[in-house]
Amino acid sequence: MRASKLYAPTLREVPAEAEIVSHQLMLRTGMLNKVASGIYTYMPLAWRSMKKIMEIIREEMDAAGAQELFMPVLQPAEFWLESGRWNVYGEELVRLKDRHDREFCLGPTHEEVITTQFRQLVRSYRQLPLMVYQIQTKVRDERRPRFGLIRGREFMMKDCYSFDRDEAGLEISYQKMWKAYDNIFSRCGLKFRPVAADNGAIGGNASHEFMALADIGESEVLYCDSCGYAATNEVTALPPEGTGIGETPEAIEKRETPDCKTVDDVAAFLGRASNRVVKSLCYFADGELVLALIRGDRRLNEVKLQNALGCCQLFPADEESIRAAGLVPGFMGPVGAKVRVIADGEVALMVNTVTGANEAGYHLCGVNYGRDYQAEKVADIRIVEGGERCPDCGGTLLSARGIEVGQIFKLQTKYSEKMNAKYIDENGKENYAVMGCYGIGVGRTMAAAIEQGHDEYGIIWPAAIAPYHAVIVPVNNKNEMLMQRAEEVYAALEAAGVETVLDDRAERAGVKFNDADLIGYPLRLTMGPKLVEQGKLEIKIRKTGEVLEIPIEEAAAKVKELLAAL
Amino acid sequence: MRASKLYAPTLREVPAEAEIVSHQLMLRTGMLNKVASGIYTYMPLAWRSMKKIMEIIREEMDAAGAQELFMPVLQPAEFWLESGRWNVYGEELVRLKDRHDREFCLGPTHEEVITTQFRQLVRSYRQLPLMVYQIQTKVRDERRPRFGLIRGREFMMKDCYSFDRDEAGLEISYQKMWKAYDNIFSRCGLKFRPVAADNGAIGGNASHEFMALADIGESEVLYCDSCGYAATNEVTALPPEGTGIGETPEAIEKRETPDCKTVDDVAAFLGRASNRVVKSLCYFADGELVLALIRGDRRLNEVKLQNALGCCQLFPADEESIRAAGLVPGFMGPVGAKVRVIADGEVALMVNTVTGANEAGYHLCGVNYGRDYQAEKVADIRIVEGGERCPDCGGTLLSARGIEVGQIFKLQTKYSEKMNAKYIDENGKENYAVMGCYGIGVGRTMAAAIEQGHDEYGIIWPAAIAPYHAVIVPVNNKNEMLMQRAEEVYAALEAAGVETVLDDRAERAGVKFNDADLIGYPLRLTMGPKLVEQGKLEIKIRKTGEVLEIPIEEAAAKVKELLAAL
Repeated sequence: MRASKLYAPTLREVPAEAEIVSHQLMLRTGMLNKVASGIYTYMPLAWRSMKKIMEIIREEMDAAGAQELFMPVLQPAEFWLESGRWNVYGEELVRLKDRHDREFCLGPTHEEVITTQFRQLVRSYRQLPLMVYQIQTKVRDERRPRFGLIRGREFMMKDCYSFDRDEAGLEISYQKMWKAYDNIFSRCGLKFRPVAADNGAIGGNASHEFMALADIGESEVLYCDSCGYAATNEVTALPPEGTGIGETPEAIEKRETPDCKTVDDVAAFLGRASNRVVKSLCYFADGELVLALIRGDRRLNEVKLQNALGCCQLFPADEESIRAAGLVPGFMGPVGAKVRVIADGEVALMVNTVTGANEAGYHLCGVNYGRDYQAEKVADIRIVEGGERCPDCGGTLLSARGIEVGQIFKLQTKYSEKMNAKYIDENGKENYAVMGCYGIGVGRTMAAAIEQGHDEYGIIWPAAIAPYHAVIVPVNNKNEMLMQRAEEVYAALEAAGVETVLDDRAERAGVKFNDADLIGYPLRLTMGPKLVEQGKLEIKIRKTGEVLEIPIEEAAAKVKELLAAL
Repeated sequence: MRASKLYAPTLREVPAEAEIVSHQLMLRTGMLNKVASGIYTYMPLAWRSMKKIMEIIREEMDAAGAQELFMPVLQPAEFWLESGRWNVYGEELVRLKDRHDREFCLGPTHEEVITTQFRQLVRSYRQLPLMVYQIQTKVRDERRPRFGLIRGREFMMKDCYSFDRDEAGLEISYQKMWKAYDNIFSRCGLKFRPVAADNGAIGGNASHEFMALADIGESEVLYCDSCGYAATNEVTALPPEGTGIGETPEAIEKRETPDCKTVDDVAAFLGRASNRVVKSLCYFADGELVLALIRGDRRLNEVKLQNALGCCQLFPADEESIRAAGLVPGFMGPVGAKVRVIADGEVALMVNTVTGANEAGYHLCGVNYGRDYQAEKVADIRIVEGGERCPDCGGTLLSARGIEVGQIFKLQTKYSEKMNAKYIDENGKENYAVMGCYGIGVGRTMAAAIEQGHDEYGIIWPAAIAPYHAVIVPVNNKNEMLMQRAEEVYAALEAAGVETVLDDRAERAGVKFNDADLIGYPLRLTMGPKLVEQGKLEIKIRKTGEVLEIPIEEAAAKVKELLAAL
């Protein structure tokens, strides 16, 4: 490809909405073009990288025994009514009607389609185990699309589904996929970690996420170097620790707490530790107000809260709704509150706590769970933090942030029971198929690679998924000898199967060098008149900055050798 | 792949809705699974063939200088409002709202998206010519989805767009695409013919369709072996021929025509030739009733009628609406009719015609255009038939039916003007980009290959797009020696890069042979005990039925040789 022809129009100004490096770099390099919020066109550079990732996925899926098929974006509502998800999936599910007024959704995932297909086409245990996958466009109407390809509304996903006779079979399929994922993300050059995860809306009883480690990751991972424990903070749980245990319960005392905006303000003003305060947070859970209570020095985990409530939609309540319910923002508390209350396990153990008085400027001291208020449920709803002890070995937990690039789930018979997907065994008996599902975000994988591989000059691609392998930069377009030799090297590299860009643009060498670093070609072959007259050129390795001088006729061989080592 | 594992569940009973052979065979072989009307899952066999077609398309598009990108399914309504198509595209365009009530459609084509992108990203003549393409899921809510992949509602399409400085540039891009299409359909093994075509809803001033010739094709092609003329019957036009010319206009006479249901009945009853009758057909055009008049021995062309009316929606009116307008089905005519009238050019030249009297059981004789009725427009709206004369050389037109597998359009500045897509030339002057667009139906191409390649036993694939190259059939699964040798041949073929299925199922040889013919593996390697003991096996070529005996150790080499020749 000649740079003068390459359709990679670089942006001078990066839109302010690009908050993270991968998004900024993909816009600056002309890899992405925004069509609507969370909806992008993958431009040629990005699409080349995406195709490489997809090819790696295909090879590993095929090797694991999964067969590729291709399901539609449009899915009939009947399928989702049968699985029970039509009415619980919420606004993320894009719904529409066809010209005959039949309801459809745009697939955010394909359990319903594949389970229906299984029911129609598979009869016998002889057809099991069965693993199928597709790489296909998914649509989820995210409330807040952001971070470019990390949280988009339309995105490319590999989804795989396994059908087994029993739990033991599912375990084998699950392990095969685990291994395949390990291979895929390794081959894509990611630094990643598989961690125990929450099942979320998909259901089932076991799940792991493959996390690409990155500071901008939306997920928090806890891990223990002593025992190997690793999980998202959505599933890590520790036994509850109360405070004030052993104290004699005091009577409730109403205290003025002027200008106290935070738990720490209140604690300091009243001369108590913040772990003696009960923090009250107000949410809408499927449209109902819920007061969630945690120890004052803890953070609430919304996923745990949602699971504890069993609700589909959960988001923080607005001030107006809070006031309408008789609560006072900043001074909320469970005593006398006329809304649903859920308490973290620690709160139920705390003695003589401080809570909001539901009156502006006042808190209550000496509040005790059971005596002064009740909760409809006591459950683990708090975030375990790095620095706390490991739930498995008691060592110290470390924390890191990650981008979820893949997730594997044991669905078991959740869908096969609802959708009546059975097979007949050797004895003529009908059994529900035992299912698993396994996803990879293709665009996220590419974005994660950029989050992990960049410097102040631009992208540093893992060679396996770089859009091109090498760029040839003749430093002066007007030097005919130079251009002639550059063309020869270009031809030699292409003939050797090296994906090469010849930067034939009438730009200054500095501009070409900057663009080479920005786009992040793993190798840059610089051809200046002096060296070329000596029959040599310079190779710069983007990743290390290392520079080699080599004879021109060895260029193709050397490039292949360097690429193999990258 | 082992046949025992292959996810290709064959259907015993083909649903009655499968009217054509390709649809029937794809269902019988487990290649397709219906999700909803006109919406299918491509099962593994079909998807393998689809991937091969897509790979051929990619190679030829890349060779033509087009760059691959990937646009979204979801398109904002604003784009379509700007191009003017939001309000004219009709019910085929699937519309929906996101959670914020913003309007989108599901892309039936991508002119709007690519033109918007061009406007955002391309500035200079130096960036031209530009050709980009994608292979992507399209959605069109067809009124009558049918014929399996031939007319579906969600389908895989390659769409390419060219941007040039001027008409001369567009001509070059158009010719490059023509050549690429020629290569693609040749490599896919199709019998096809490029023909001049109507522009339809896309617009522009020149278009060709690539027709895969097949009896079930929805398009009628007219061609002339004398001069090479070839066009769809939607664009073939001949000078109008009146009848009765030179006769003295008679007075109108009302005649009883009892039990006359057709033009031929009326003509016979009145003792006239049917070309003296005016046939009146009633349509709804964008919601208004229109009476279309053609010579009694002609067929109406709905595409020509729609173009002449300039309407977006056109379909035959129902009896109730016809009666409500004061017309009588079976006895309609333009005299005194209170609806819009459009006449074919021949009708305006006819003298002393017979028309319906708008009264049950009666026709009028001696009706003359101009004197007795007027039309709001006189235009060519009739079908030219095979057997008529060639519009170019006067030779005899032949007709054939075809499946439109590809279409190329000169859009010119239709979209760039509406959407303000300009580039700046050497003189600093802004000019509208001159555009072309170029589509290929991937699934249609596969279906067309099956329509052209099958016999009573099953599919006869072109080798280049067959899901697998060869099947090995050991005739007796219980013969261990045989199975052992079959495994060795399987390993040898796989090692040689031959995509092979080993039929290891515990089925009778006859069942395996039938399935091999049905799925249509280009080569079948039969391994029976007698031959194998002699160190030989049998190769049957699906296409010719030819059978060869070869030494087992030569199997891989012979298979590769045969495939290269297929």
